[in-house]
Amino acid sequence: MILITNDDGIIAPGIKALVEVASKFGEILVVAPDSPQSGQGHAITLNQPLKLRKVNIFPGIESYECSGTPVDCVKLAKNVLLKDKKIDLCLSGINHGANASINIIYSGTMSAAMEASIEKIDSIGFSLLDFSFEADFTAAKYFIEKIIRSVIENPMKGCKLLNVNIPAGKLEEIKGIKVCRQGDGTWVEEFQEGTDPRGEKYYWLTGKFVSFEHEKSTDNDITALKNKYVSIVPSGHDLTLHSSIKDFKYLEII
Amino acid sequence: MILITNDDGIIAPGIKALVEVASKFGEILVVAPDSPQSGQGHAITLNQPLKLRKVNIFPGIESYECSGTPVDCVKLAKNVLLKDKKIDLCLSGINHGANASINIIYSGTMSAAMEASIEKIDSIGFSLLDFSFEADFTAAKYFIEKIIRSVIENPMKGCKLLNVNIPAGKLEEIKGIKVCRQGDGTWVEEFQEGTDPRGEKYYWLTGKFVSFEHEKSTDNDITALKNKYVSIVPSGHDLTLHSSIKDFKYLEII
Repeated sequence: MILITNDDGIIAPGIKALVEVASKFGEILVVAPDSPQSGQGHAITLNQPLKLRKVNIFPGIESYECSGTPVDCVKLAKNVLLKDKKIDLCLSGINHGANASINIIYSGTMSAAMEASIEKIDSIGFSLLDFSFEADFTAAKYFIEKIIRSVIENPMKGCKLLNVNIPAGKLEEIKGIKVCRQGDGTWVEEFQEGTDPRGEKYYWLTGKFVSFEHEKSTDNDITALKNKYVSIVPSGHDLTLHSSIKDFKYLEII
Repeated sequence: MILITNDDGIIAPGIKALVEVASKFGEILVVAPDSPQSGQGHAITLNQPLKLRKVNIFPGIESYECSGTPVDCVKLAKNVLLKDKKIDLCLSGINHGANASINIIYSGTMSAAMEASIEKIDSIGFSLLDFSFEADFTAAKYFIEKIIRSVIENPMKGCKLLNVNIPAGKLEEIKGIKVCRQGDGTWVEEFQEGTDPRGEKYYWLTGKFVSFEHEKSTDNDITALKNKYVSIVPSGHDLTLHSSIKDFKYLEII
């Protein structure tokens, strides 16, 4: 059983493209948000109930829209819809826009895949570096099919989560695939300020991503994508900075 | 300048306790959500504008409530309210409830602190293992004061984020402080099912945390807390599973 979700919502073209590719590999269940959930990170819904509605969007494929976040979708799929059935693979995306570098933290797409990986399910999040709903998924579908086939043939061992980003552009423009680390960077935030119809000030988040990686550093996803490679980052959920534990030992009282 | 935020909302007793302790160490700005935001993880608000309202809750301390998530609060504080002013320390909490183990991922409290740490600001998230709004913060305040003082005296170097959890109970029951790694565990999810007033089925998230740590493993936060120690986990935002990069090299096309 392959579970598919995303964060752009169940009617986004990206999830349609992913369902098309994944349907070559086995039975599929789609559980995806009923509205766009970009930037929802690892949010879960604690203070209100969730709804699941069966929809008929992908011919012949059991599909539900969910009122919650991407992580809620995975939890509901696993605990309510598939109770006793094993999920062999969780696929999330194809996200409209990059989730390289620190964007993995803000991304609902990647958080959904991470939630499945916490449950020891082989999980992959896919993102295309094109925000448009008119984006061309031809190249993305080609590489995604290759990656899914490889992972099914070689089930993941220690690492249960891959963050896959695919450059925008035509298939012949993409040079290959690199397996690398998460690049270092941040958002230079800017807020668009305005006044609402009742005269109250508002702030609307916008901003620009800035890479901290040296141009010559080739082992990270930011550079791989810039050089027109698909990037794959094996990822986890242990946030401990192990090398720093010793630096804070002075705080101990034992 | 010390920035203080949380995820339980600006009127939660936990943030009041944190403001009381932190005000001994310098000028404070409070920017916290106007409503409870537990479980919001690293969510940011992209699809709607944010509001900031100056409030008079903590005598003599500049404070704002924000309509967004905990991470939004940090972004607004840094980019709108404090534009040119340096933030020396970001404190988040005191959270009502544990944020040990994988809960760091779901926690708005820890995500707010992580957001500041991404901006290279020394950041600490504090959580008390007591969900109650009537919780006794006496012991928490004692240890938090110690930790803040130490970190101000020894500014953080490589690691800019500490996840601090404090056992429930009286001061004399707490044995000390341990600096350790994030413990391994997960939530065994259960959904409470019901029917809403319009006859539609709903699912409400609940569940139980299960530790994967061996009882004899003493180097992790789950065990430290069980043994009545305050736990401190130096944390980061690089999710790469570095040791697994080589295992996926077979996927490369170069």
